[in-house]
Formats: sequence, C-alpha cells, structure tokens
Amino acid sequence: MKTFISIKTPFLLFATLSVVAGLKSVQAFEALPAKPPVPADNPITQAKVELGKQLYFDPRLSKDGTISCNSCHNVMAGGDDNRPNSVGVKGQHGGRSAPTVWNSAFMSVQFWDGRAKSLEDQAKGPLTNPIEMGMDSHALVIERIKKMPEYVSAFKKAFPKDSDITIDHVAKAIATYERTLITPGSAFDRHQKGDKKALSAQAVRGMGLVQSVGCTSCHSGPNFAGPMLPEGTPFFQKFPTFPGSKYDSQYKLTADGGRFEVTKNEADRGMWRVPTWRNVSVTAPYFHNGAVKTLDEAIRVMAKTQLNKDLKDDEVKDIQAFLESLTGKFPEQKMPRLPATPGEYVVAD
Amino acid sequence: MKTFISIKTPFLLFATLSVVAGLKSVQAFEALPAKPPVPADNPITQAKVELGKQLYFDPRLSKDGTISCNSCHNVMAGGDDNRPNSVGVKGQHGGRSAPTVWNSAFMSVQFWDGRAKSLEDQAKGPLTNPIEMGMDSHALVIERIKKMPEYVSAFKKAFPKDSDITIDHVAKAIATYERTLITPGSAFDRHQKGDKKALSAQAVRGMGLVQSVGCTSCHSGPNFAGPMLPEGTPFFQKFPTFPGSKYDSQYKLTADGGRFEVTKNEADRGMWRVPTWRNVSVTAPYFHNGAVKTLDEAIRVMAKTQLNKDLKDDEVKDIQAFLESLTGKFPEQKMPRLPATPGEYVVAD
Repeated sequence: MKTFISIKTPFLLFATLSVVAGLKSVQAFEALPAKPPVPADNPITQAKVELGKQLYFDPRLSKDGTISCNSCHNVMAGGDDNRPNSVGVKGQHGGRSAPTVWNSAFMSVQFWDGRAKSLEDQAKGPLTNPIEMGMDSHALVIERIKKMPEYVSAFKKAFPKDSDITIDHVAKAIATYERTLITPGSAFDRHQKGDKKALSAQAVRGMGLVQSVGCTSCHSGPNFAGPMLPEGTPFFQKFPTFPGSKYDSQYKLTADGGRFEVTKNEADRGMWRVPTWRNVSVTAPYFHNGAVKTLDEAIRVMAKTQLNKDLKDDEVKDIQAFLESLTGKFPEQKMPRLPATPGEYVVAD
Repeated sequence: MKTFISIKTPFLLFATLSVVAGLKSVQAFEALPAKPPVPADNPITQAKVELGKQLYFDPRLSKDGTISCNSCHNVMAGGDDNRPNSVGVKGQHGGRSAPTVWNSAFMSVQFWDGRAKSLEDQAKGPLTNPIEMGMDSHALVIERIKKMPEYVSAFKKAFPKDSDITIDHVAKAIATYERTLITPGSAFDRHQKGDKKALSAQAVRGMGLVQSVGCTSCHSGPNFAGPMLPEGTPFFQKFPTFPGSKYDSQYKLTADGGRFEVTKNEADRGMWRVPTWRNVSVTAPYFHNGAVKTLDEAIRVMAKTQLNKDLKDDEVKDIQAFLESLTGKFPEQKMPRLPATPGEYVVAD
C-alpha cells in the first residue's frame, strides 16, 4: 500500500510529519508559489498548454457533445460549478461536489477520495464516467479527436517526438493546461510577502484563530490543503473526526464512505483528501456532498466535527474574513478556438 | 401585419425587392461590413460589451446553473453546438438546431421562425423557455443577478443613466456583446476586396454556380441571408418550395410548421428565415431540425427542394468549396470573469 498521511490530532500531525522524508519544516502559512510541481515526464510547453485548453473546453469530448471539463470546473468562475453536485450528460447528477481546478496542481492526489495520483490520471476519469462525460471508452474519445484535423496538427506540435493521439497524451495536455491555473496575489499572499496593510484587522484576527483553534493542523502548506508531498502521496483526514454532532445527520456527512468507496477497506471509511482553502469563498456550496450552503456554516461544522469546538459568531466572522483573503488573482485567459469539422460533425448523439 | 419579404422564385425576388423602400441595389456578393447595424436606443459601449459577455457565459442564468447562452451558441466554435438540436436544463432536447450567433447582428430578425425582431428580443427568450434555460420568470433572473454585487456595479457602468437591473438591460447587454461577434476576413471577403488569389479555382467555380443555379436568389447580401433590411423586417422563404422530393420524408422537412407555429396562419406554414451561409461549413448538422448531417448533402437537398434541380457531384463539390471560403476569421476574445458570490451561491437547484 502507498504511504499516505492521515492524522487525527495536531499532536499526531507533527509526529507523522516528522517522519516524512524531505520535509524541511512545518509551516502553517506559505505564499502560493508562482509555479507548481511538474512531473519529469510531462514538462510544460506552450503548445501543450494551448492544446490542453482546447481539450478542456471541448464539449465534443462528451458522449452527446454537451459537457466539457469546464462545465463542472469553470475557470471563468472559482474553478467549480457553484452547485451541490455536478450535472453530466443526459441531466444526470453526481453524488459529490466538483472540487476547484484552480491550484489543483498543488494537490498531491486528485478527487475527493484521492483515487488519482496525478492531474494526468484525474483527467482520464470523467471522460468515461457514465454520469459525467459518458463516453463509452477512451478509444472512442481518441477516434473522435482524430476526426478533427486541427487536433491532429495540435498534437504534433504538443508532442513532437511521438505525436500519436493517445489517451495519455490527451491527459498530459489537459494536465499541462491545468498547471497554468494558479492564483497568486491574494490579500493573504501580499501580506505574507510583507504588505502588512493587505489584510484587514478582522482577517488578521481570523489568521490567528485558524491556528489557535487548530484548523491549520490540516489546512497548512501553500495550498492550505496540507504539506507539499510528492505527487501521488495523499494527505487524508477522517471526516467527521468527532462523530455524533447534530451536523452528521443534518448534512448527511457519513452517507458517503469517501476513500472506503475506492478501497473497500473499513479503515478508509470516512477518509477524505483535505481540500484547499484557496478561493474557498467563491466555491460554495461546501464539503464533498455540497450539503453546506454558506461559508460561515462550513466553518462552524468543521470546528465542531474536526476539533469538537463550538465557535462564537464573532470567531466565525473573523475566520471567514481570513478565508476570503485567500481569493487570488485569476489570470486573464484567451478563449481557445475549438477545432472545426468542415462540412460535418463528430457527435453522433 | 408587419411587412416582410417572402419569395418563391428569383423573378418574384426581384419583383418584391424592387418595392422595398431604401434598398439601393440587389447585390449577390458583398464583403462583410466591419460593423453591424446598431439600434439607436442601444449604442455599443465597452462596459456593455463586457457585461454582456459575462451574462452570455454565465450558467447561473439558467434554472439549475448548467446552461449559458454559450452552451448552445458556442463562440469558441462556429457559434452553435454542432448537434442536431440543443440540450437544455435537465437533459431536455429542443426541436430545432441552434442557429449561429456569429454575424447574427446582420440578421434583421432572429430565431428560425423570425419571432424576435431584434437581438435584444431574442436574448430574452431562452432564459424562460422551459426546455432551454428553464428560469421560472424574468423576475427570477433579475433577482438572481441582483444577488451578485459585481453584476450590480457592472450594470452601473453599462447603464450609467438608469442602472436599474431589468430584463431589458440584460437583453441590451447581451445583444451588444453579440454585435461584436463578427467574422470578416474570410477567403471570400479577401477575394471580394481585390485579392484574386484568395479563392481556389474550385471555389470560384462554386461562386459562379451559386448564381447560375439560383441559390443567390435568397442567399444574397453581406450575410448571404438576404438583402440588408431594417431591423424587425423578416426575410422569409418557403421550405420546401418544391415539395414532394424524396428529401421531404427522409429528413422530415415539413414536420415543423416554421413561422406557422408562431402565427397559426396557414399561409405561414413552412415559412422560414433564410439562414446565413457565413461559417456554414463549421455549423453542421444542417437545417432547422439538424436532420442533414453533411454540407454536401445540404447542398443537394437545397437545390432539389428550393430550385427543383439535381446537381452533379462535381457541382456539389464546387459549391461546397465556395461555401467553405465563407468561414471567417474569428476574433480573439478574452474569457470573462463571472461575478463571485462570496461565501454562498445563487442556484437553488
């Protein structure tokens, strides 16, 4: 089994972290690096970014030509769809809330249950998930892409040494585009880099509270989703850590087994990847099932279920102000042009 | 009843056109003007374009937050959805094929049946169409928009004299953005402006054929959709003009009554707005019901049903080459940023 980090208390966090090889120090607060980790076998090139952006926005990669990656992970917004759960082909609803694509390059595993060990792995999943993009097979995805001459040349530019159109190349291109989706420059980051006026007094109080209350035991690191770990190394947490609060039933917090649904190992029941705090204020509703509608309620629920603490209203407001300071600057992007299919079309419908 | 242009033969076309006030001459071939007509009560401003683009791309203007204008009229592609018919909220299918938004500013009426007399009028329709964006009322659209503070400021900038958020202002902003969606610079346009090398010999033969065969009786004017008429003045045509061919049943050409479905007047049965030829090669499938899959077949069907002519294969290929020369240069566009809803969300679902 793969090494992974899982903690139940701050004490255990530090005990665990101390054994992680290569981890220099535990920093609760770090500015977002300008560049994310990049796997050695998929270096970033402009041609790959451009191709990946086309694929990311192309609804023809779904069975009936209606759903693109961007449908659920909308980069014109907070990188999600602002809905409790996503809607795929034929109006089907998924059971989980779409995680944001912004800064996902800083996550060491992907999906709520960490079942993909890289962005490349993740990109392959929704294409053939019957309730998401619904393609019958990756082979059909490739067949459809090959019908579009502009894609054929774009793959040649993006993969000059081996320009065969394969699902691995599709995933590499999409992942490369996603590695450009970084939001530095939040008020918090400016504060972290020395601009002490960047944060309001309320946000500064919130910054203190997330440490003293204990939130940063898990929400640490540059993406506030745990320490930077090698790609493929998950940072899981039990949710709820303190079961039995009113929130369990109110928000059906335990209906979904999380990591258990992947491994069928009882020890993994209720284990979830720690999500990022960056841009969290623009990605309501909250949690894996999108059951919590507002950020202030999400703060209350987390304090109770993870730390067994009842926060005062003022504390909630201060923490919310701090979380709002983590909304970054979304880079300007040009729209892609989607490859044409002169005189015909590729969605069989 | 409003004046409208409806023709059955080239002879009648010219007879009818000669009585249209203000029409200087009938030109089969015109380069696309750089700017479209703009109604006096909705001048183009940058603030309005930017707001309109946000609204155009915002899926939160649909009932469940999944469908935006761009879902069916994709400006990253040919301005449509490359499907026989469109898919709205809850996976519902419409009965007609989405017309392209590109150069729609040059159309004097909107929708296949011409039921909207302006882009402004058109923009209001899909919002509350139960099988398109599915909002219960325009009032709910406005209520939702008002919950987003960045929209409130954007409306102030776009409509400084009367910045109330109304459905008319929503429609005016969207229509203004659409008036920027113009594709000059096609091979045909360059040829028209003197670059005689811009068209292949085959396309030049096709250009001759569309005149000699009779296609340009209707597909004339800068948008190849009839003469430029005052806003609100439709240019309708009977389809099929020559009923009884094998295509009627093969492609169910008469199942939809067209203009009749709006007026319930038998004289309007089978009357349709003449669609544009510009970018037609990137908007398959074809016709109001999207029943014809390829451009070559669409050419055969039109020659038979409208002119009672059976084209030879070479003639079809030449005409197709000419139609492909009408694909314009799609302007580069920046992606909009969609207004945030800090800490909460607006789609009730």
